[in-house]
Order: sequence, then C-alpha cells, then structure tokens
Amino acid sequence: NDKLKIFSLNSNESLAKEVADEIGRPLGKCSVKRFSDGEIQINIEESIRGCDVFVIQSTSNPVNDNLMELLIMIDALMRASARTINVVMPYYGYARQDRKARSREPITAKLVANLLEKAGATRVIAVDLHAPQIQGFFDIPIDHLVAEPILTEYFKGKGLEGDDLVIVSPDHGGVTRARKMADRMKAPIAIIDKRRPRPNVAEVMNIVGNVEGKTAILIDDIIDTAGTITIAANAIIENGAKEVYACCTHPVLSGPAIERIDNSKIKELIITNSIELPESKKSPKIKQLSIAKLLGEAVIRVFEKKSVSTLFE
Amino acid sequence: NDKLKIFSLNSNESLAKEVADEIGRPLGKCSVKRFSDGEIQINIEESIRGCDVFVIQSTSNPVNDNLMELLIMIDALMRASARTINVVMPYYGYARQDRKARSREPITAKLVANLLEKAGATRVIAVDLHAPQIQGFFDIPIDHLVAEPILTEYFKGKGLEGDDLVIVSPDHGGVTRARKMADRMKAPIAIIDKRRPRPNVAEVMNIVGNVEGKTAILIDDIIDTAGTITIAANAIIENGAKEVYACCTHPVLSGPAIERIDNSKIKELIITNSIELPESKKSPKIKQLSIAKLLGEAVIRVFEKKSVSTLFE
Ligand SMILES: Nc1ncnc2c1ncn2[C@@H]1O[C@H](COP(=O)(O)O)[C@@H](O)[C@H]1O
Ligand SMILES: Nc1ncnc2c1ncn2[C@@H]1O[C@H](COP(=O)(O)O)[C@@H](O)[C@H]1O
Repeated sequence: NDKLKIFSLNSNESLAKEVADEIGRPLGKCSVKRFSDGEIQINIEESIRGCDVFVIQSTSNPVNDNLMELLIMIDALMRASARTINVVMPYYGYARQDRKARSREPITAKLVANLLEKAGATRVIAVDLHAPQIQGFFDIPIDHLVAEPILTEYFKGKGLEGDDLVIVSPDHGGVTRARKMADRMKAPIAIIDKRRPRPNVAEVMNIVGNVEGKTAILIDDIIDTAGTITIAANAIIENGAKEVYACCTHPVLSGPAIERIDNSKIKELIITNSIELPESKKSPKIKQLSIAKLLGEAVIRVFEKKSVSTLFE
Repeated sequence: NDKLKIFSLNSNESLAKEVADEIGRPLGKCSVKRFSDGEIQINIEESIRGCDVFVIQSTSNPVNDNLMELLIMIDALMRASARTINVVMPYYGYARQDRKARSREPITAKLVANLLEKAGATRVIAVDLHAPQIQGFFDIPIDHLVAEPILTEYFKGKGLEGDDLVIVSPDHGGVTRARKMADRMKAPIAIIDKRRPRPNVAEVMNIVGNVEGKTAILIDDIIDTAGTITIAANAIIENGAKEVYACCTHPVLSGPAIERIDNSKIKELIITNSIELPESKKSPKIKQLSIAKLLGEAVIRVFEKKSVSTLFE
C-alpha cells in the first residue's frame, strides 16, 4: 500500500485531506507556489518512482489556474516516473462547453480532456459530469461517480420519503437524475417545463406533475448563478407545494447566487464539497455534505484493480 | 490576401492592432469574454473556413488565463475549419521552466508546446525565447524572431557606437545576445561574473572586461523582478563607467521591479511591447519600442510562404 500516493493541489485541500484520511494515507509532500510573475512553480518533495499516484484537484474558479496546476503537476509526475497518474476531479470545469451550440464555438470540455491526456494522465475519476458524453472525450479510462445517493441519504435522514414527496428536475436535461433520486425515495417526479410562447415574451414556468401539498426536492448537477433553481423553487411554492428543498452536486454559486438563494422560497440548499465553499459564500440555508468517502473508496478500488461501478449498488 | 486573417486575444490588443495595420488588414471579429464563474467564452464572429489564421497572444501575466484563451481559440479555429493556425506569441510564458534543474520538477515550457500542438496549432512565431532549445520542444514549424536589432537601432539613433561604448551581459547565459549587439555597434563586450565564494556568503559581482569611462548598455531577454539588472548596473557605475543603459525584449517587470529600476543607476531602460505595460508600471526611465513591424513582416512572409530567416540580415 506504500505504492499508493495521494497529492492535493490548491483548489480543494480540505476535501483532499478527508480523502487521504479515508484511505489511511498521508497526503504526499509537494510545494505548489507562484513565482513573482504569477507562473506556477511545482516541486514534488518525495519520490514517487513506480507508484500509483492520485492527484485531487477540482477545476473550479479560478478555473484556468487550477487546470494549469493540474497539468503541470501531471507533467512533473510523469517525468518523475510515476507508474500511473490518476486524476481525481471532484468538479470538472468547462463541462458545460461540451458541444457547438453555435457556429465557430470551441468545445472546451473536449479540449480539457485532450490536455489532460497529453500532459500524461493515465486515468480520470470524475463526479457528476454535466453531460455523461464527456466520458467519451477521453481515450483513457474514466470512472464516473455520482453523488445523488449521498444527497438522497440526507433527505431520508429527515424522514422524507414516499408520496408526500416529489422530486423535481429544474429542466428537461436533468430528468434522469431526478428519476434516480425518486426511485430511491419511492416518490413521484415533476419537471419544470420552461417555454417562451413567442420571441421576446417572458418565459412561462409550467410544472409537469403534481406538487400540491407536497414537500418538493429540486435536484440539479450544477448550481451556478442560481437563476433557474430559485425561479423554479418559487414557481413550485406558487403551485401549492408545502415546502421546497434544493440540492446539487457542484456548488459553483457565482455572481448573485447566494443573494438569490437567501431571497428565494428555498428552505434549505444541500450541496457537496466537490467545490470548496469560501467563507463569503456560506449561508444559513446552505448545508454541505462530504463526498470524501465516495472518492476514497474509488481510489482504493482503482489501486486494487477492482470495479468502481459496484460503488453505486 | 482575403485568406489571411489576424485575430487578437486579450493579452496585447494594442500590439495586435499595430501588426494588423502593418499588414493592412483589419483584426478578425471575435468575442473573448468570461462567464459568470470565470470560464472563458470565445465566439469567432466571421467565417475563417479555408483561411490562414494568425492569432496574436502573449502568455504574460495572468499567464494561465492568457494561455487558456489561446488554447480555446485554437480549438475553436480548428473546429471552424481554418486551413492553418499560426500562433504568434510575442512573449512565451513559462519559458524559464525549460529543464529539470532539480529532481521531480516539471518542464512547463515543453508542456506548453505540447498543449499548443494538441489544441491544433500548425505553426508558432515566437520572439526571443529564453532558451533557443525551446524551438526543439515543437514538432510543428516555429519561426524564432529576435528583437535585438530594434534595440540596437534605438541606441545607434542616440549616436552611441564604437569604442566609447561597452555592451554588457548580466550573466553568462546572455553572452551570445550581447555579442550580437556589440558586433552591430562595433563595440567591445563585458560580462557580469557573479559568484559565491563560500556557501551562505554574499555573492561577489565581478566584471570581466573594461567599462571604465565608457557608456555601458546592459542587454537581457527578460527583466522580471529587476534584481540582477539593477545590481549589475550599479556595479558597472562603481567600476567607473560614465553611464549605464539597460534594455531587454520582454518587460515582465513583476514585484519590486519598477521601484528597483527607479532607484538604480540605470539612466534609461529600453524595452519592447512584446508584453503590454499597464499604467502602473510606466516610469520616466522606461522607453518602449514596438516590434509590430517585425511581426507584421513575419506574418506576411509566412502567408506568402517565404523565408522568415532573411528578416535578420
Ligand atoms: N461556464 C458557463 N457558464 C454559463 N454558461 C455556460 C458556461 N459554459 C458553457 N455555457 C453555456 O451553457 C450551455 C450549456 O448548458 P446546458 O444546456 O445546461 O448543457 C452552452 O451552450 C454554453 O453556451
Ligand atoms: N517565472 C519564473 N520566475 C522566476 N524564476 C523562474 C520562473 N520560471 C522558472 N524559474 C527558475 O529560473 C531558472 C531558469 O532561469 P535561467 O537560469 O535564467 O534559465 C529555473 O531553474 C527555474 O527554477
């Protein structure tokens, strides 16, 4: 087991520490600093020759700095003769740029996959990719973990389950995720069906499914500016729901997100620590759950060459 | 000539405009913005199908943002069917990380070369790479321009030439550059020979060559924190030089650089616009020369499939 090394970079050190604790290994020694001109300076301070190395880094904001830290670290590990370089990305930045929606757009999610491979990554462990198709952007093995069971356990712990409950997807893209949670909680689902009756006319928030008198749980993968989720929550309450919770895996929470959540009808927002929450984004409404156990288990299974997919049974 | 397109990204728009003017073509239309969470959003707003595209971007501070802009732009151009993608990098960031000086260090200059190629660059035009060996990091053609003739012309314009002058290299690595300038100005050279007599004892600044009674010109490729260059300038004056100028291609000028220059014996510092100088770094001692003509000529020659090396005769 001394051939397993875990390193943390700068995006999410507290999660990395938790994962290392789960595995019962110390974090590897490395220094990740900046030169005076802002260039990243990495030095790995222990031998990793012949080891299976796991690097934990979310490419959250500042996304370009965090991504370059990761790429430079991979380069250093490769040159230091690591046996395998396993990139653990609790949050995969640029995942929403996963297709050309208009002409002459980049597909940055694919670019990032190419860069990671080119730098020397031999395997990726990711959590709730915005589109599962991103797995196909890689020519190296990728393990795709989902945090929905962790979110579900939390709500079960509150005694929420069954027909008094409804799991709501905030858009058509998230129905599969809502369906999974609903199955696990024996609850029905509903879908927010936004549409614009005519161009330049405000969108109508229509709810497909019954929320009246129920506790609603909105589930999404990413909450960014929180526009969609807060409008959806308010519409659910207007449609007669008793109360509304929201949850997501990746708390991007940029711009007006916290203000919007605080001012919304959302009772509680459950998120994971795939992205570290700075002090400025903490709010009494927000509760953060840890995915350290999930990641730790995945790391051990990869190291022991066991299947990771059974993690979801 | 309508198959030649030039695009600017965000690092050095004023230089890019000058280059476009030199060539007599407008800058291509593209929008390079940020999403709310800090991710880069690029959209190319005119067709470039079948064109020879030149993208002008220095990977200066903020280096990671500027590099990612460049990589994402290359990805978008490639997907929009550009015929060739020529990356013009007036300043190549991470160039000083060009070898493993210690165990387990990355070679980020090589990583950057790999990333540019992987994204889809088909040619690179660079200026005064910190080490000429970086050319060998690429498997695509690279044109390596030098700004020394532009710096030399400026000093000739002051009537400086011949034996009253001495061209000084601030270290052993820069002697070739100093030699070239000296040849062009029919002047002798001198070298700053730093050495540490014993560990933990202050460095001694020894000057190899004669500077007494002369006008000295210190030449370097990069001036970053300006420690070396200002100490060298002061040593030159202490050794009896009449006056001392300094010049470099790439004005990184980070941290205490401006203060050090202002407080030093340097009479004037001549730099180029390979890196845009923010207002906060302007100083009466600093004079910036343009490399737009050099880059414009190189772009035209590449487009017309003519040799770029004859630019240096
Ligand atoms: N960082 C980002 N923030 C906001 N929108 C984005 C971001 N990245 C990509 N997008 C846009 O969001 C769309 C994808 O969102 P979705 O429909 O939820 O998959 C794409 O068409 C992008 O134009
Ligand atoms: N951005 C940077 N700022 C300061 N020093 C650097 C930077 N990048 C690399 N270095 C160091 O500078 C050394 C190369 O400088 P040189 O001897 O002038 O080629 C390397 O050994 C690096 O450790």
